[in-house]
Amino acid sequence: MSGHLPVQSPAVFSNRRAALADALGDRPAVIFGGGERSRNYPANVYPYRGDSHFLYLVGAPMPDAVLVVDGGRSELFVVPPDADDALWHGASASLSTVRTATGVDAVRPLSELSEVAERLEDAGTLPSADPLTRAKQCALLGRTWDPTRAPTVADLDEDDLAVADAMIGLRLSHDEAALEMIRGAVAATTAAHRAGMEITRPGLLEHDVRAAMERELLARGCEPAYGSIVTVHGEVLHNNVYQHRLGPSDLLLADLGGEHHGWASDVTRTWPVAGRYSATQRALYDIVLQAEKEACAMVKPGVRYRDVHLHASVVLARGLVDEGILRGDPEGLVERGAHALLFPHGVGHLLGLDVHDMEDLGDRAGYAQGRTRSAQFGLGYLRLDRDLEPGMVVTIEPGIYIVPAILENERIAGPFLADGTLNKEALARFADVRGIRIEDDVLCTDGEPEVLTAAIPKEAADVEAAVGAAS
Amino acid sequence: MSGHLPVQSPAVFSNRRAALADALGDRPAVIFGGGERSRNYPANVYPYRGDSHFLYLVGAPMPDAVLVVDGGRSELFVVPPDADDALWHGASASLSTVRTATGVDAVRPLSELSEVAERLEDAGTLPSADPLTRAKQCALLGRTWDPTRAPTVADLDEDDLAVADAMIGLRLSHDEAALEMIRGAVAATTAAHRAGMEITRPGLLEHDVRAAMERELLARGCEPAYGSIVTVHGEVLHNNVYQHRLGPSDLLLADLGGEHHGWASDVTRTWPVAGRYSATQRALYDIVLQAEKEACAMVKPGVRYRDVHLHASVVLARGLVDEGILRGDPEGLVERGAHALLFPHGVGHLLGLDVHDMEDLGDRAGYAQGRTRSAQFGLGYLRLDRDLEPGMVVTIEPGIYIVPAILENERIAGPFLADGTLNKEALARFADVRGIRIEDDVLCTDGEPEVLTAAIPKEAADVEAAVGAAS
Repeated sequence: MSGHLPVQSPAVFSNRRAALADALGDRPAVIFGGGERSRNYPANVYPYRGDSHFLYLVGAPMPDAVLVVDGGRSELFVVPPDADDALWHGASASLSTVRTATGVDAVRPLSELSEVAERLEDAGTLPSADPLTRAKQCALLGRTWDPTRAPTVADLDEDDLAVADAMIGLRLSHDEAALEMIRGAVAATTAAHRAGMEITRPGLLEHDVRAAMERELLARGCEPAYGSIVTVHGEVLHNNVYQHRLGPSDLLLADLGGEHHGWASDVTRTWPVAGRYSATQRALYDIVLQAEKEACAMVKPGVRYRDVHLHASVVLARGLVDEGILRGDPEGLVERGAHALLFPHGVGHLLGLDVHDMEDLGDRAGYAQGRTRSAQFGLGYLRLDRDLEPGMVVTIEPGIYIVPAILENERIAGPFLADGTLNKEALARFADVRGIRIEDDVLCTDGEPEVLTAAIPKEAADVEAAVGAAS
Repeated sequence: MSGHLPVQSPAVFSNRRAALADALGDRPAVIFGGGERSRNYPANVYPYRGDSHFLYLVGAPMPDAVLVVDGGRSELFVVPPDADDALWHGASASLSTVRTATGVDAVRPLSELSEVAERLEDAGTLPSADPLTRAKQCALLGRTWDPTRAPTVADLDEDDLAVADAMIGLRLSHDEAALEMIRGAVAATTAAHRAGMEITRPGLLEHDVRAAMERELLARGCEPAYGSIVTVHGEVLHNNVYQHRLGPSDLLLADLGGEHHGWASDVTRTWPVAGRYSATQRALYDIVLQAEKEACAMVKPGVRYRDVHLHASVVLARGLVDEGILRGDPEGLVERGAHALLFPHGVGHLLGLDVHDMEDLGDRAGYAQGRTRSAQFGLGYLRLDRDLEPGMVVTIEPGIYIVPAILENERIAGPFLADGTLNKEALARFADVRGIRIEDDVLCTDGEPEVLTAAIPKEAADVEAAVGAAS
């Protein structure tokens, strides 16, 4: 058993498992811990990360372990420690230590899993992120997921869907233990963004800033929760290269969050490399900031998240109209999707154990029953359309991007150019902007929303003061 | 096509493919690039790393691409750029750009791979590190590898084994282009170890040192080639936790290497946290250093690598006898495997695209035909038993470890305690050692061996001078 033990009280996990059992009634759930993923050969693996549903219910990553929740009883099947483990990995936790730390009713060697297989006829499971584990799930439970791709909810049978819905019900609103973990991730992320601002100066590589930021995560026992984006080309939305040199008139966009015992943070800031926004950068920065703050303030129980997205879009559209980049009334522009020419993505998503929480379950997690994705460019990328509830943590992350591939796309931009909605000449003045995004993690409470990431400089003057403070 | 382009001349890869075709005659080879590995949900992936055989022949990672080498002709099937790529990832290379950069005869959309399937009846392939890719290999070529585990050479058919042997023949001795890449990895690794020594001081966490070291890799465009080991518990051989605080009398063992465009480095140094080895630490450090230097000097054409291991073992045994820890004559102790009580692993391995190069092919790569693993504890862990050739790069990494699980193991240590070979009382004096390893990357040439990692401090006085130099 080369996994870890939970760092929180076993009662946390016993309570979650009891809630799952309540939701499922007589149906057993079989939750797999996932395995190590080979990087280039079997023994050279990526840092092991337990599957999120397993982490939620057990509290710690345990390679190849399997949790069976059956009515009131929870059994955990683990790879027992062997002699070689002690030689190469140091002492392992005994099965009884694992039982005490996780609060399950029994911990048994994985080899005994087959003994309970006959009880699992009506069991539901959720596909592991690990393909080898998925093959084992298929073997144990008689599933036939396509081995050449990751399953989606469309591949789940009725038993599996019952487990999926029960897990969604549990994980949408975070308990106190979950929030404690997310706050730990936020603390590391805060240190990382401050360090990134401090080290930034013209002439460094993007790599240097990324390295300085990730150092703060690693030094706090965290890992990056997703591939960090640290780039002077913020208009490339999924940018995972770090080779550009920072120019004195560049903006640096950093979308980077730490993962703390599996729990994520997700934060973006955009700062001027030389410590001062140009007039054009500042104009669009202030628009994004206004949209972001108004959207954060809307995170309250009962508010439909799509309305947060649409409101942020209207604020952005209004600002773009004021700058002469768009023409029309802001609400009308958003109805027609014109704002998406410069803000093509959704305003945010659920945050939890996954940075896009429960995205393995697709829109079944992110969208309330009966709601579906829009076909409109921009709105169609919105990952969350639920009414907010206390305990939900969402990201709020509007942005403005000058993406040539969008602005030159006849299907997307053509109609707005033809009718004069988009003024490319006016936009050309903002060439030193490229991409701006501001993103916070926000907790919905019974009262005012809590911006968990509020300690990271966001007001333009605060950001300017933080940049280059190390030199 | 969200992959990269080769950074070296296309002639490098054309020559390697021609050599593969020569070795295979009429038999086609189908080499898969591998895919992105999901971390917790499909869109949140580990940093993509192309499969090593593909990198060797194509020069750059390209997710889901497939190379077909068929006689003199090479065709590369890639996922073509689509409109969304441009929106989210920026501009992609066109198929013709990929063709020019890789030197293949044709680059075709992946969808056309099925058109050539009938030509592939006798084709050989090598299992991808990526399970989803392996499922695609099975589908295309009619293989039936067990989906619940990574295949080994025992799962390869005759066609596959022909490709395996041809790739081993090519990759055992590095061409100039490969050495250029390994030297790039070494440069980053050198900076990392110097930075690690400089930042070290009592009171930091292992995390802090690891982060400072990996920062140097990232800032040079490298990634860790394997899970870094940075620990005050060097006696835990595979230690991937970093939570201990550095005490003033601790040794810090750092086994960390950069990967540069896929090519690895692999270096270990062991330095005193407070900048000065204690007398007991220094005594064992000097023994390991002597063994390491003598082993490095043996890396010459025609020398059997197992003899390098055995010689290093004798030097270690002699030092341990001098310190009163072992009793007997050094050669006799090594014959009986007594040295393995304190040096339980092999003296090193092949280094190349993989840190344990071609370990996906098991001992078929590491052991010359007709040679097999020893059953003796210690020697049985030796990963390489070939006669050295010019162009081979190997690691040399002897060590001394005080591992309670070995020393208290009745089967392993019992006989040596019973006959007085191991003196535990004498060993107890060295409790502040725990684990020492010194590891360099060494190129076998026609003349003297070249220690590629010679710029990293290794002599005790040089190491002491480097530790804490930042403060």
